Amino acid sequence: MRMRHKPWANDFLAENADIAISDPAQYKGRWNTVFGNDNPIHIEVGTGKGQFISGMAKQNPDINYIGIELFKSVIVTAVQKVKDSGAHNVRLLNIDAETLNDVFERGEIKRVYLNFSDPWPKNRHEKRRLTFKTFLKKYEEVMGETGEIHFKTDNRGLFEYSLKSFSEYGLLLTEVSLDLHNSDPKGNIMTEYEEKFSALGQPIYRAEVEWRTKDRL
Amino acid sequence: MRMRHKPWANDFLAENADIAISDPAQYKGRWNTVFGNDNPIHIEVGTGKGQFISGMAKQNPDINYIGIELFKSVIVTAVQKVKDSGAHNVRLLNIDAETLNDVFERGEIKRVYLNFSDPWPKNRHEKRRLTFKTFLKKYEEVMGETGEIHFKTDNRGLFEYSLKSFSEYGLLLTEVSLDLHNSDPKGNIMTEYEEKFSALGQPIYRAEVEWRTKDRL
Ligand SMILES: C[S@@+](CC[C@H](N)C(=O)[O-])C[C@H]1O[C@@H](n2cnc3c(N)ncnc32)[C@H](O)[C@@H]1O
Ligand SMILES: C[S@@+](CC[C@H](N)C(=O)[O-])C[C@H]1O[C@@H](n2cnc3c(N)ncnc32)[C@H](O)[C@@H]1O
Repeated sequence: MRMRHKPWANDFLAENADIAISDPAQYKGRWNTVFGNDNPIHIEVGTGKGQFISGMAKQNPDINYIGIELFKSVIVTAVQKVKDSGAHNVRLLNIDAETLNDVFERGEIKRVYLNFSDPWPKNRHEKRRLTFKTFLKKYEEVMGETGEIHFKTDNRGLFEYSLKSFSEYGLLLTEVSLDLHNSDPKGNIMTEYEEKFSALGQPIYRAEVEWRTKDRL
Repeated sequence: MRMRHKPWANDFLAENADIAISDPAQYKGRWNTVFGNDNPIHIEVGTGKGQFISGMAKQNPDINYIGIELFKSVIVTAVQKVKDSGAHNVRLLNIDAETLNDVFERGEIKRVYLNFSDPWPKNRHEKRRLTFKTFLKKYEEVMGETGEIHFKTDNRGLFEYSLKSFSEYGLLLTEVSLDLHNSDPKGNIMTEYEEKFSALGQPIYRAEVEWRTKDRL
């Protein structure tokens, strides 16, 4: 993700505080009040410029979406995109996924999306991958007994790693495509990275995993 | 697999009864006596023309290999290949994988290879796929407490299906490659189908799964 220093970013986020929630930990356990309804909440970790989450929000008005993005210089674009889309069911948080458990109560989230997460190909950076077990634990904690992860990437190494990591964690693989755009990707909303890499002819990998409920094990 | 009627096949197999074991159920529980040693036994289900198993046998003289192939007209080629290779650690069985449990005792087998298994793409043929749960159960039964499956294919649909089937069965995914020939396939022995499909530029998919021991779960 190319970074540009954007001196106006702080002001822009403050002006759009209805979308870009500041100090989100204050809403832990009561995100329904932020949305004004009890619809299920899905989060996207590493939202980037927001094409996926604003598209999903338009497609699924009965789901509430929260996008999490580490970089201010990137999230501003997502905020603008959500604004332009007119969707009222999206919020964006400029936080690190490390802090998820400070922001969401156990069971408050129903689904986690990971799209084109940074691959961190070196073994010594394994811990930074958003499908490393410590992150899976965070997702499990905010989802509680049942929950699911939907994961897309063009990166073969990250996908291979993630399938193993999911399995090792005991997650159930319910969907997998090794060439999404040559499958039947009904309702698929493309991310910025997905458009770029699929245009280059690279296969897009996709998986859905879920927590096995106790009686399944 | 192209079938040709080979009227001489019965005679040929009888002449090579040291390699092509007839009435294999008689050795159930004492395959070590057939090999004359207690080396681990690995089986390949759907051996085809035998390039993989004869190559593996030469590469790993301390492993005993048993290839299982349904069709007489195909297994004769494998018998000839094993003969030509001079390997003494291979036997071939002209049986249906359905009957595995009549032929091997629980725990007698340490590893199962599946290479380029017939894809049976139609949903209504799911039960015929060699990674369907009833087959996984047979493999589990001949391997006992611990065991592993090594699976290669060029068929995307079959591979996607199999990853889900393994997960649903509770198997642990320990290795996966979504493009074997562009990974680091150390010691990889190609099958006849693998040579054909990789020459066409198709990616070869590969996975290793193992039974989770009780305390891992
Ligand atoms: C490769 S980009 C993909 C962006 C977008 N999902 C797409 O598919 O176009 C990954 C994004 O994840 C963000 N990210 C990486 N680690 C993060 C973390 N720990 N918490 C929040 N965001 C993170 C990065 O800042 C970057 O914007
Ligand atoms: C597509 S061919 C692949 C052959 C070889 N493994 C390769 O990679 O070149 C599949 C083989 O599996 C055999 N086969 C299919 N179902 C079988 C079964 N139930 N028991 C034994 N062999 C079977 C077929 O006869 C065929 O020779």
